[in-house]
Amino acid sequence: MSTARETIGIGMVGHAFMGAVHSHAWRSVHRFFTPPLIPRLAVLGGRDEARTKAAAERFGWAETETDWRALIARDDVDLVDICTPGEHHAEIAIAALEAGKHVLCEKPLANSLAEAEAMARAAEKARENGVRSMVAFNYRRVPALAHARNLVANGALGEIRHVRTVYLQDWLSDPASPMTWRLHKDKAGSGALGDLGAHIVDAAQFVTGETVTGVSALTDTFVKERPDGNGGTGQVTVDDAALFLGRLSGGGVASFEATRYALGRKNSMRLEVNGSKASLAFDFESMNELSWFAGEDPATEAGFRRILVTEPGHPYVGAWWPPGHLLGYEHTFTHEVADLLTAIGDGRDPEPSFEDGLRVQRVLDAVERSAAGEAGWTAVPAGVADRHN
Amino acid sequence: MSTARETIGIGMVGHAFMGAVHSHAWRSVHRFFTPPLIPRLAVLGGRDEARTKAAAERFGWAETETDWRALIARDDVDLVDICTPGEHHAEIAIAALEAGKHVLCEKPLANSLAEAEAMARAAEKARENGVRSMVAFNYRRVPALAHARNLVANGALGEIRHVRTVYLQDWLSDPASPMTWRLHKDKAGSGALGDLGAHIVDAAQFVTGETVTGVSALTDTFVKERPDGNGGTGQVTVDDAALFLGRLSGGGVASFEATRYALGRKNSMRLEVNGSKASLAFDFESMNELSWFAGEDPATEAGFRRILVTEPGHPYVGAWWPPGHLLGYEHTFTHEVADLLTAIGDGRDPEPSFEDGLRVQRVLDAVERSAAGEAGWTAVPAGVADRHN
Amino acid sequence: MSTARETIGIGMVGHAFMGAVHSHAWRSVHRFFTPPLIPRLAVLGGRDEARTKAAAERFGWAETETDWRALIARDDVDLVDICTPGEHHAEIAIAALEAGKHVLCEKPLANSLAEAEAMARAAEKARENGVRSMVAFNYRRVPALAHARNLVANGALGEIRHVRTVYLQDWLSDPASPMTWRLHKDKAGSGALGDLGAHIVDAAQFVTGETVTGVSALTDTFVKERPDGNGGTGQVTVDDAALFLGRLSGGGVASFEATRYALGRKNSMRLEVNGSKASLAFDFESMNELSWFAGEDPATEAGFRRILVTEPGHPYVGAWWPPGHLLGYEHTFTHEVADLLTAIGDGRDPEPSFEDGLRVQRVLDAVERSAAGEAGWTAVPAGVADRHN
Amino acid sequence: MSTARETIGIGMVGHAFMGAVHSHAWRSVHRFFTPPLIPRLAVLGGRDEARTKAAAERFGWAETETDWRALIARDDVDLVDICTPGEHHAEIAIAALEAGKHVLCEKPLANSLAEAEAMARAAEKARENGVRSMVAFNYRRVPALAHARNLVANGALGEIRHVRTVYLQDWLSDPASPMTWRLHKDKAGSGALGDLGAHIVDAAQFVTGETVTGVSALTDTFVKERPDGNGGTGQVTVDDAALFLGRLSGGGVASFEATRYALGRKNSMRLEVNGSKASLAFDFESMNELSWFAGEDPATEAGFRRILVTEPGHPYVGAWWPPGHLLGYEHTFTHEVADLLTAIGDGRDPEPSFEDGLRVQRVLDAVERSAAGEAGWTAVPAGVADRHN
Repeated sequence: MSTARETIGIGMVGHAFMGAVHSHAWRSVHRFFTPPLIPRLAVLGGRDEARTKAAAERFGWAETETDWRALIARDDVDLVDICTPGEHHAEIAIAALEAGKHVLCEKPLANSLAEAEAMARAAEKARENGVRSMVAFNYRRVPALAHARNLVANGALGEIRHVRTVYLQDWLSDPASPMTWRLHKDKAGSGALGDLGAHIVDAAQFVTGETVTGVSALTDTFVKERPDGNGGTGQVTVDDAALFLGRLSGGGVASFEATRYALGRKNSMRLEVNGSKASLAFDFESMNELSWFAGEDPATEAGFRRILVTEPGHPYVGAWWPPGHLLGYEHTFTHEVADLLTAIGDGRDPEPSFEDGLRVQRVLDAVERSAAGEAGWTAVPAGVADRHN
Repeated sequence: MSTARETIGIGMVGHAFMGAVHSHAWRSVHRFFTPPLIPRLAVLGGRDEARTKAAAERFGWAETETDWRALIARDDVDLVDICTPGEHHAEIAIAALEAGKHVLCEKPLANSLAEAEAMARAAEKARENGVRSMVAFNYRRVPALAHARNLVANGALGEIRHVRTVYLQDWLSDPASPMTWRLHKDKAGSGALGDLGAHIVDAAQFVTGETVTGVSALTDTFVKERPDGNGGTGQVTVDDAALFLGRLSGGGVASFEATRYALGRKNSMRLEVNGSKASLAFDFESMNELSWFAGEDPATEAGFRRILVTEPGHPYVGAWWPPGHLLGYEHTFTHEVADLLTAIGDGRDPEPSFEDGLRVQRVLDAVERSAAGEAGWTAVPAGVADRHN
Repeated sequence: MSTARETIGIGMVGHAFMGAVHSHAWRSVHRFFTPPLIPRLAVLGGRDEARTKAAAERFGWAETETDWRALIARDDVDLVDICTPGEHHAEIAIAALEAGKHVLCEKPLANSLAEAEAMARAAEKARENGVRSMVAFNYRRVPALAHARNLVANGALGEIRHVRTVYLQDWLSDPASPMTWRLHKDKAGSGALGDLGAHIVDAAQFVTGETVTGVSALTDTFVKERPDGNGGTGQVTVDDAALFLGRLSGGGVASFEATRYALGRKNSMRLEVNGSKASLAFDFESMNELSWFAGEDPATEAGFRRILVTEPGHPYVGAWWPPGHLLGYEHTFTHEVADLLTAIGDGRDPEPSFEDGLRVQRVLDAVERSAAGEAGWTAVPAGVADRHN
Repeated sequence: MSTARETIGIGMVGHAFMGAVHSHAWRSVHRFFTPPLIPRLAVLGGRDEARTKAAAERFGWAETETDWRALIARDDVDLVDICTPGEHHAEIAIAALEAGKHVLCEKPLANSLAEAEAMARAAEKARENGVRSMVAFNYRRVPALAHARNLVANGALGEIRHVRTVYLQDWLSDPASPMTWRLHKDKAGSGALGDLGAHIVDAAQFVTGETVTGVSALTDTFVKERPDGNGGTGQVTVDDAALFLGRLSGGGVASFEATRYALGRKNSMRLEVNGSKASLAFDFESMNELSWFAGEDPATEAGFRRILVTEPGHPYVGAWWPPGHLLGYEHTFTHEVADLLTAIGDGRDPEPSFEDGLRVQRVLDAVERSAAGEAGWTAVPAGVADRHN
C-alpha cells in the first residue's frame, strides 16, 4: 500500500520545544494517516554543531547543518520547517520559498507587520510555481476546534453574536522568577500578546470564518524588573497582559485576553461562541471536549452537552483510538503535517496560509496601536485575501 | 428570647419579581437569624388597588397603599423598601429619607448619574440623623462571594492582577421575542449594562475592595426591531450587549461583559480574580461553590478547589442547614435584610451604601460615554467616599 | 383570591433539624403555590416545655404541647407532622391516623420492619375514611429528580439496564469525633443504612418506577469505639458503611452505597440510570442540575447535557424564580407539603405513601439480613401495593 | 549520548488495536525517555502473511513471521511482545520465557486461572535466569494514577476506608449491534468482566497497594441474542455487566462495576479512594486530571482540587510538554515500555509482574464463582507473592 507512495525530504531549522514536537509529527504521521507523501527526516539545522547533532540523534534526523542557507540549498530537502524564534522567520521563509521549497513556519508568522507582509507576498509569488506554505497555528487541528469550525460552517450556530476567548497561563505569576529572552521586546516582539494572543485571534477567526475588523485594547506590565540571574535585575520590555475588545466582520462582538499571570491556569485557552441557533465552548485544558448548546432542544431537556470529541466521525479522530481514548497536545502537530502533506500531494494550498498568519498579525498590530493610544478604536486593515474577495 | 426584641415596620413599594423575593426575606429573616429588630410586614404599596391587595394577601402584608407618599407618611412604617423600576427610585428614596425613614433600594441605584448623586447626598444627610440606607446588591450576600471578599480582605490573594467577570443570559436570543419596557431607554435607562453590568461592577469592586478607575467600552444592539405585540414592531433603544475593559485602583486590570444573547447561559454571573498568591472563580449558576487556587500548595498537589460554601464557618451559612445542603437565590435577600436590620439595630451604616451604588453608577456612566466615543479611555470620577479617603 | 381557601391546622411533633425545615415549608407554601388548603401552624409538640416554647416562637407556631397525645387530640389539629427520631414514628403515626388526623411522617418510616408494616396497615385502614398519610422522602421533590422520574415515565430512557447510586457524607471520618445517639443501634435502628441508604433506595425506586427485588450486601463499622464525651469511650453498634447490589423488577441491575466516611463528600447523593435510549445522572451537591444523555443525538454532537433544572416547564420551578436562579435544600420540603395539601384538598392519596416507605424498609431489612449472612442473595418480599398489582 | 546505548530486538505477535499502539510506543520511547536499551522493531508476527507485511510497513517493523514459534526462535528477537487475544497468551508467553526471551504480555494475563498460574510459574523460573516479564496493565502508567499511587504510598491518604471503581462503556447498548468474538465465552473468556473489570481490579490493587481478599458478585447478560451478520442470530455467552463488592487487605471495603451498556459513557474508568486523611478520584475520560481532597485543609477552604497532572514533578510528565499541555491514551504505553526497558537494563523485575496479573485473575475467578453461587461471599486465594510475604 504505502510502497507506492513517494517521499518528501524535510529540513527543519530549530530543535527546542517546537523542534521536538514537529519531529514527532514528521516521524509519526504516516503511521496513522495515509498522506500521499511520506516524510524523510533529512536534515536538522541548528547553530551549535554538537547540540544539533545530539538533537538529530534524539529526534531521528539523518543529517545536520549549522547554516540554514546550506540546509535550504540541499537537494534532499523539499520542505523547510521553521521552528526558530520569530525574529528569524521572515528571512528563512522567504529564502526557502524563493528556492522553491515548501515551507511550514511556526507562529506567530513574524515579529513585525512588515516582515509578515513580505512573507505573505513571497508565499503568493511562490504559489504560482506550486510551492506551498503554511503557518503552524496548530490549534486549528485540535479535533474539538476543527469540529467547532465545521459546525459553524454548516450553519448550526446561525448568526454569530458573541465570541469570548482568553488564553491564560501563570508561569510569570511569581515576581522572583528570572528574566528570559521572552521578556525582551527586541527578541520576542511582544509578550503575552504575540505568544498567546496570536493563538486566540487565529482561533476566533478560524472557528467563526469571520475576521476581526477593529479593536480597542489595553496592555500592562505588572512586574517591570526581574532578576537577571547574575545578581542584578533586567527590565521587562513586553506586555504581561493584553486585553482587547473587537468587532467581527459578520456583525458580532468579541473579547480577548492573554496573560501569563492567571495563577492556577496552566494552559487555559478558552473560546466561547454564542450564535442565534447554538453556542459552543472550549477549554484547551480539557482539549478532548467541546461544550455544545443546541437552541432547538426543548427547554426542559436543553443544556450544554459535554461532547467527547473522540468519535470516528470527528475530524482526525478516525486515525487514532476508539471513543473515549483521549488525544494529547502533540497530536495537533501530527494532524497539521498530515494536512500539509496531503495538500502538497494534491497540488492544493494548505491552510492556514501565510495570509492567514498576516491577518492575525494585523490584528496584533492594531492591538498594540490601540493600547498605545488610550484604547481608542483602531480598524484592522483588510488582508491580502480580503482585498481579493 | 425573641420576645425581648423590638419590631420594625416595613413599607414596601412594588410587588413584582423583586417584591416577591423581598417579601419572603422580610417574612423569614428572624426565623433563621437573630436580628435585633423583627420586621412587621406593615404596608404594601402599588398603583393598582386590586392587584396590590391580592399581592399583599399572597405575600403576607397587613395593609396596602396606592400612593407611595402616603405609605412613607404612615407612622407604622419605619423602613421603606423600594422595589419599583429604576425610574422611580430617586424620588421615593429621597422623600423617604427626608421623612426620617430607613431605606432599602433595589439596584441599580437610579437610571441616571444625576439621580444617583442626589440620592447619595440625601443618604449622607440622613445619616447624620441616624437614618440608614442600603442599595440591594444582593449578590454580596451570596455566601461564596462574601467568603471571597473575606479571603481578599485577609490578604490571601496578595496583589490583585486580574479580574474577569461576565454576566450572561439568553432570554433575548430569539429575535422574534417581543418588546418589553426593558428595551426602552426612557424606562429602563440602559439594557444589559444597567440590568446585568451593574451587578458585576459592584461584585468586582466588592470582592477586590478596589474601585474601577477607568474604562474602554463597546456596546451593541443586535436586534433593533422587535414585534410590539400589536402586529407592528417597536424600536429597541437600549444596548443588547456591553463589553468593557477597566483598570483597578490597586494596579490590576479587569474585563466586563453583560449580555442577554449568550444562548444557553441562563444566569451565568461569573467572576474570576487572579492575585499574586491565589486565584478564585465563581459562577452564579453554581452559586454554592467557590473555586479556589492556593499558590502555596505544592505544584504536584495544586489545583482549583471546588469549595462547597456550605460549612458552618462560611458567611451566613451557620443559620441554615448542615454541610452540603444547598442554598438558593432568595437566601441572598434574607441575608441582606438580616444585615440591614442588624446595622439599624446597632446604629451603624449598612453596606452597600448609596455611595457604593453611586460608585457603580459612575462606572456605568463612563462605559456609556466611552462606547459613544469610539471606545476611548474614560476615567471614572472618584465617588463621595473616595473623595473622603 | 386565596380568601376563598380553607385552612388546615397543623400539629408538629419535634423541633430539631427536621422541625426547622418543616416549619419553614408550612409557613411558606401558600406564598408561592396555590394549594386548596392554607396551613395554620397551630401546635408544636416537644417534651421540654421551655425549649418547645422557644422553638414555637422562633418557628412561628401558635401554641405548644408537651404530650404528643394531647397534640393529636386537639380540635385545631387536622394534620400531624412527625419530626421525631425514628423510634417514635410508629406509635405517634398510628395514634394520629386512628384519631382521623392526616399524617406526614419523616423518613425512614420506622426503625423496624414490624413497625413499618403496622404503620402501612394503619394507613390503609385510615384511607378508607379519607384520612391521608405521606412519608417524607423529600428528595422526590428535588425538581431534577422529579423531572428524571417524568422522563423515565414517558419512556425516554427505554429499558432500564443500570442504576448506580451512592450517598456519601464524611462527618464520621475523624475517629476522634464523639459518640452520638445516631451510633447506638437501639436508638437509630441502623447507621448509614437507614440514615442515607433509605434515601437512595427510595430515589432509585421512585425514578425508575420499579422495585428492588433482591440484594447482596456488605456492611462494616470502621471505628468501633469513640469518645463518649465523659472521658471514656462508647461502643458504636451501627454500620458505618453499607454497600449492596440489587436486581430491579424490570430486569436491570443496581448498586448502592451509603457511608459517612467519604472524606470530602459533604452530601453527595448521586444517582445514575442507564437505559437503552438515554441516560441520566444527578448529584445532590449540584441539586439544580440533571445530566442527560440522549441516545438519539448524532454521535458527533452527543454528550451529557448539563440541564439547569430551573425552567418554568420543570416540576415545581414555575412557582419560583426566572431560569438560572437556583433553588436550595428546603425548597424540597415546600414542594412536599404543597403536594400533600393538594392531595388532601383533592381527596386523593399523596405519594410517597406509607406503603412506599414500607417498600424501602423491606429493602433495608433484606440488606441487613444479607450482610449478616455472608452477602448471600436475599429476596425482598413484595410490599402491600405490589401484592395488589 | 544515546550512541553508547545498546539496542534490544523486539518481536511482536499481533497487529490489531494493541499492536498499533505498542508499535507506536516502541518507535517513540527513546525519543522522549532515555532508557538504557533502545528498541529495534525487528519482527512482526501474524498469521496472514499479506496482512502482516502490510502492518509491518505501516507500523515500522523490519521483518515478519507467520509462525510465532519462528519469531521466538530468532536471534534478533530479545523480547517478545504479545498482543494477541487472550486465548494465545499462555502458550506464547511460556515458550518465549523458556527460550530466554523477555516478555511483555497484554492484559488480562490469560483466559483461565490455570493458564495464568502456569504463566506466573514460568515467569518465576525465568526470573532466576535474568529473564524479565511484565503484564501490560497500562493504566498504571497514566500519570494521574501513578501519582495517586505515590500519594497513597507516602501515607497521604492515611487508612483506606473506601474504594469505588467502575469501568463504563456503551458500545453494546444497542441490541441490534452484531455478534463479535468478544461475545463468545470460548474465545473471550468473559465479557465486561475480563475486558474492563480486569483493569479496575488491577488499578484498585495498584493504587491502594492492597489486595482484594473476598468478593460478592452479580453478573448479567441483557441481550442474549444478537444478529450474526448472516441473517441469523448468535448466542451471547459472556456477561454484559459485572458488579461486585469486595474487602481489602487493609480493612477497607470496595465496589466494582464493569459494563458496556452505560449509554453515553465512552471510556469512563473511574476510581475513587477515601482515606482517613485524604480522598482522591479519577476518571479516564479526563485522564490528565486527578481530584484530590486534603483533609487537613481548613474547612472553609477545603474542596476537591482539580489537579492537572501535567507538572514536571508528576510521574512521566517531565519527558513531555510544559504544564497544561495534555497527554493522551497512547502515552501510557510509551511509559510502560520505558519502564520495562529500564528494568531490563538495570537487571530488575518490572511491574506489574505476571504475579500481579495472576492476582487480578484470582479476583476475576472469585467473581465468577460468587456470581454463579447467588452472590455468596467468596474468598480470593492469596497469590504467589502474597504467600511469600
